[in-house]
Amino acid sequence: MLPALLRHDEIARYDSGVLYTLDRRCYPLSKQYVAMHSVKEVAKAIKDMVTQGGGPLELSLKALLLARDRGESLEEAVSILSSTRPTNRSMANTLSLALERVKCGEDLEEVISSILKDYDDAYDRMSDYGSSLIKDGYGILTTCFAEHSFLLSVKKAEAAGKKVRVYVPETRPYLQGAKLTLPSLLEMNVESYLITDAMPAFFMREKKIDIYMSASDAYLPDGSISNKIGTLENAIAAKYYGIPYYAFSLRSSYNEDIRIEYRSQSEIIYIDGKPITLPEAKAIYPAFDIIEPSLISGIITKDGIK
Amino acid sequence: MLPALLRHDEIARYDSGVLYTLDRRCYPLSKQYVAMHSVKEVAKAIKDMVTQGGGPLELSLKALLLARDRGESLEEAVSILSSTRPTNRSMANTLSLALERVKCGEDLEEVISSILKDYDDAYDRMSDYGSSLIKDGYGILTTCFAEHSFLLSVKKAEAAGKKVRVYVPETRPYLQGAKLTLPSLLEMNVESYLITDAMPAFFMREKKIDIYMSASDAYLPDGSISNKIGTLENAIAAKYYGIPYYAFSLRSSYNEDIRIEYRSQSEIIYIDGKPITLPEAKAIYPAFDIIEPSLISGIITKDGIK
Repeated sequence: MLPALLRHDEIARYDSGVLYTLDRRCYPLSKQYVAMHSVKEVAKAIKDMVTQGGGPLELSLKALLLARDRGESLEEAVSILSSTRPTNRSMANTLSLALERVKCGEDLEEVISSILKDYDDAYDRMSDYGSSLIKDGYGILTTCFAEHSFLLSVKKAEAAGKKVRVYVPETRPYLQGAKLTLPSLLEMNVESYLITDAMPAFFMREKKIDIYMSASDAYLPDGSISNKIGTLENAIAAKYYGIPYYAFSLRSSYNEDIRIEYRSQSEIIYIDGKPITLPEAKAIYPAFDIIEPSLISGIITKDGIK
Repeated sequence: MLPALLRHDEIARYDSGVLYTLDRRCYPLSKQYVAMHSVKEVAKAIKDMVTQGGGPLELSLKALLLARDRGESLEEAVSILSSTRPTNRSMANTLSLALERVKCGEDLEEVISSILKDYDDAYDRMSDYGSSLIKDGYGILTTCFAEHSFLLSVKKAEAAGKKVRVYVPETRPYLQGAKLTLPSLLEMNVESYLITDAMPAFFMREKKIDIYMSASDAYLPDGSISNKIGTLENAIAAKYYGIPYYAFSLRSSYNEDIRIEYRSQSEIIYIDGKPITLPEAKAIYPAFDIIEPSLISGIITKDGIK
């Protein structure tokens, strides 16, 4: 059984003109669902970080059912949804692909099912490769919410009798490590520790970390990847200590380009509506790092480790 | 005029049997003072992080006035106060020195004044050296609250007509960067930006950072320093990008040993009394990093840069 955050019915459930998603902003402390009635509401939910990682893609795909049932243009829906996460090119590409297939006469529901099944198959293969890199007794560092590929890799390693410990940086400002990764690992009964984003090098120096594994949001023509801000700092520390760093990538081929998303400074300055510094302070919030190939030991794809 | 956090009367004011300190836990959003009536209350306040950086030392010194006026043993006071910050050896050493001088017949108030004056002189000299390393147009990264030496270095650089920008990591879990460093820099009208602890490498890669400067809590026999957790991660990234890293040290000679302080996991798991993950989660909170000499461009002391 997958942890809640990886289950299709929790990520995006379409029922009689309403799309539901588990609100990851209040998870794990409460389990609430956001109900969306239009493509615009879905786009707003994605921008508001109701879900993330692979969530926006799955939600966007099912939002096409909403558009169809309301008699709205699928082209416009794809355009609105694609603009919600400028750094996540794979979402835009997949939505365009779905649109093309429907235009060629395929049934929208079947297209969505087949795309999601392809993803599940890819996660399954990537986690076979991922688990093969994990040895008994390993301390594993991750970043943000590294999704299916990472959680399944850990699960398969443990199923093969390997005992592991996972170090989970909290991932400020959204705390995806604390709110998504750690609860999922606990649900899977994996020994896991929450740390702050400044601590990975400390544990590397103490020889507690044997491998660093993250997701990747884009895979660039020069072999770089982009991923959640903080990945670069950890990849450099891993290189310094001779610890291998592997990134999961759904794409075996390169994206064309990337635009780093800068988010609102208030997302750093306020925690739960309360400022952590003088409200007139300025903050800068680049949401993604770019990690150069010399820092990466390998990219784990569905076609093998490159 | 120094920013509030560096002024003696804000750090520790002794008046008619009561010691007052600005409560840095609620600063800068409110300016409240904690009133302490005994050495034990002072020790508790220090452990509770009411003040930090050079604050505990100044507060401990003036707590000896409390002990004296209550007719309590100064030896016991020094022992209680020294145990509040096991990693901060300089505080223990200074308190022992003060005790010795009083035993040799010096007046306690004069001993305290002369020690604080020595510190002020040292800060003044260290910030002369610090400001000489800062060039016009520099982007400066710091960590936690790097105190007098850092803030005075920036102030002197600007007074010499150099324009700088400072990038301030928030410093989870206590957020000293957000709560102490940034407001002090704003009070000094320095262009400053709050970032999360995972972001320094991003700005280094973007060539926005020209120098990294931190305090140091201990200076070890092999030339390593210890400083707030997160310093190591940043020092490694600075090395990777060829950016010089300088640490201020009040000590020109080495400390004998160091014991890393581990603090309560609840300090990471809870923000403002609210859990950020499942309350049954485990967290690990080492409060300090050790940074090896190969990562350090120089130690800025009152006797020059080594």
